[in-house]
This record gives sequence, C-alpha cells and structure tokens, in this order.
Amino acid sequence: MPLICEEIHKVFLKRIADSTVRRLSLYLRYLEEFETRGLATISSDELAARGGTTSAQVRKDLSFFGSFGKRGLGYDVPQLGRRLREILGLDREWRVIIVGAGNIGGALAFYRGFRQRGFSIVAIYDTDTSKIGKRFESLTVRDTAKLTDDNAAEPADIAVITVPAEAAQSVANLIITSGITAIMNFAPVQLQVPDEITVKTVNMAMELEGLSFALANRE
Amino acid sequence: MPLICEEIHKVFLKRIADSTVRRLSLYLRYLEEFETRGLATISSDELAARGGTTSAQVRKDLSFFGSFGKRGLGYDVPQLGRRLREILGLDREWRVIIVGAGNIGGALAFYRGFRQRGFSIVAIYDTDTSKIGKRFESLTVRDTAKLTDDNAAEPADIAVITVPAEAAQSVANLIITSGITAIMNFAPVQLQVPDEITVKTVNMAMELEGLSFALANRE
Repeated sequence: MPLICEEIHKVFLKRIADSTVRRLSLYLRYLEEFETRGLATISSDELAARGGTTSAQVRKDLSFFGSFGKRGLGYDVPQLGRRLREILGLDREWRVIIVGAGNIGGALAFYRGFRQRGFSIVAIYDTDTSKIGKRFESLTVRDTAKLTDDNAAEPADIAVITVPAEAAQSVANLIITSGITAIMNFAPVQLQVPDEITVKTVNMAMELEGLSFALANRE
Repeated sequence: MPLICEEIHKVFLKRIADSTVRRLSLYLRYLEEFETRGLATISSDELAARGGTTSAQVRKDLSFFGSFGKRGLGYDVPQLGRRLREILGLDREWRVIIVGAGNIGGALAFYRGFRQRGFSIVAIYDTDTSKIGKRFESLTVRDTAKLTDDNAAEPADIAVITVPAEAAQSVANLIITSGITAIMNFAPVQLQVPDEITVKTVNMAMELEGLSFALANRE
C-alpha cells in the first residue's frame, strides 16, 4: 500500500466503532470453532447466522480491512482467522497490570482466558498495606506508589483499574503519567483522559441492564 | 395506546439492538449526573457530546420509546430519567442468583453496583462441597443440586453463570429447566438456549481485545 494510503487507512481504522471491533472478536471465535471442526471455507451467510447478524454486515465489517474471500467460494477459514488475529492485535504478547487487589482485581488476576489470548498479567497493585505482599498465584501485590518506577523499568501496555469509584480518577492519572496508554476501567465512573489514551469501561450493572430491559419489555 | 398498537410496539421492542440498550443505559447515567448538578433540561446535542455519539443518534434511540422533549427546549432531565429507568426495567427489584462460587462469582456477590440498580443477589450456588456452606457477605453458598427446588419456592429473575467453560452448558440447562429465563454468562462459551431465553455473554478477553485493537492500529 502506498504511504499516503497507509496514512488514510490508519485514520480510518481509528474511527471504527467499538461495535465493529466486538463483532470482529466474535467472528474470530466462530472461525476458531470452525477450524477445530476442520472446515476449510465459510460463507458470509454462515458467519452471519452464527453471529446473529446479516451477511451484508459481515462483508461490510471485513471490508474495512481489505478484501477477503472470493465471490461464491467464501472465506478461507485459517487465513481469515490469522488476519483477524492480526487486526485485533492478538498476534503478539501484551503486558497488563491490575490496579486494585480487591475482589474483582483478584478474580481477573486468576482469569485463565487472558493468557490464552496473549494478555499477560505482569503485576497487581494496591495501596492497602494489609494487601501489599499478599500473593495471587504467581504475583505478589505491590504498592501502588511503586507503579511509576516499575513501569519505567518494565513498561506495561494495558492497565486494568479495579479500585473503588472514588479512587479511579487519581489512579487513572497515575497510570497515564507512568506512560501507559490503554486502560480497562471496572470502576463505575466516567474517566477523564487525554485524547491519545484509549479507555474501555466495563460496567457490570450496565451488562445486567441488557437483561432487565429484555425482561421488562417481554410480555 | 390501542391494543393492536401495543402488540406491534412489543414486537418492535424485541428487535431493538443490544447497542441501543447500551446507549440508553449510558444516557441514563449522564442524566443522573445532570440531575445531581441540578440541571432541569438537556438538549440532544449535550447528551450526544457526553456519550460520544451524534444528536441524530440520540433522537433516534429515544424515538423508539415515544416522543420526548420539545423542539428547541430539549429534554426534561428528571422526566427522561424516570422514563429511561422504566424502559430499562430499573423501576423494580430483580432477584438474581449466581451459579459458581469461584473468584468471579465471589467478586460479583460483593459488587455494590448491583443493588443500587435494583439487582438483588439472593443466592449463590456451587457443586464443590468445600465451597458449599461458605459465607459471602450475607449469603451462604448452596448446593447447585438444590437450585430447582429453591427456585420453585422463591423464583429468581436472572441467573449469572460463573462456572468453568466445560460446566456452563449443563448449568444453563438446569437454570432453564428451573424456570429462569434471563442468563448472564461469564463462561467463555456460546450457550445453546431456546428462543424465549435471553442470554448476555460477558467475555473478559473480548473486552481486552477492544484495547489490543486500538494499540495495534494506533501508530
């Protein structure tokens, strides 16, 4: 791709909606399932049926990233899987730290699904002296005050915030000052961050609201 | 609304995309923030700016549920907040059970954000005899074998699955047989359920992929 096209393409990628990225993650999971079952090719119809969407949506989602598949032949399963892993940044190792060694922080430190996808939890932090030094599997809880120095020595890519709501913004500031540019936030607050920082907020109550909505509007 | 219109409206509501419901949850949070700050009205532009979307999208999302706001005057903050809580089913109490008293199950049992929104965790289950009888705050871990009987005596609305992947489908079957029709699934598998059951799958690794995508496509 010529340099100018690459530049345009990158600006374009930045604008891709969260919902598209979500669907790409889902497509990858279906492809891996198909691969396990030994299927070599898959149509956009089949991918769509599996993901509860339309084949037009599948083709549109994939078209952002170049041309895949041949009309009437469908997509090559291993090849599209590889390309999706590349697009999603899953072809490498990401260093992840967790700030907040409470219940959710601890649960995430133990979560096996992360490492399988190349997300390595390299450290867990807390300010509570009763928690510092405690072990979570292979990790020892470190003092949050050491985060900046630790990160200068061995930079992390992603920080997960699992502190209480009232501490989340100051922890986010510390993370950003330390040079980490991607944050997954479990605290139920909207973090204020500079444009160049990527934040994803996971709100457990909001997830349940998808169900209460369905229940309330069902009959 | 005449009965036939109500029927049509209900079919319509069922088709509303997850992403719309997600945005409604966000709008509600912003409205509550505005309410705390004492604002009486808000324009679709302001709501859109806060939520990183367009005012056309805000108006479209809200138009599914009737007419709100007056041209040029904006939305009445408390009124729209009340209506959104109603739409999202947050104007009542929902009884929630957790199946799987491991790290994530335990973390969710302690999660304060649920009760604030009317989600009451009424029971937590496990099959592991070393966990049964253990206390999580005011809850005692019960034997999963008792779930059906318990639910016949005191029906729950929502079940949260936090068991390992290989046990998730059989737990889902048990939940459905017991009469619970809404499931929040934390196990990294796609559950097979009848059409009338609503499932929401929360995949922690997929959440992180939103960040790895951003990092991989950033520079």
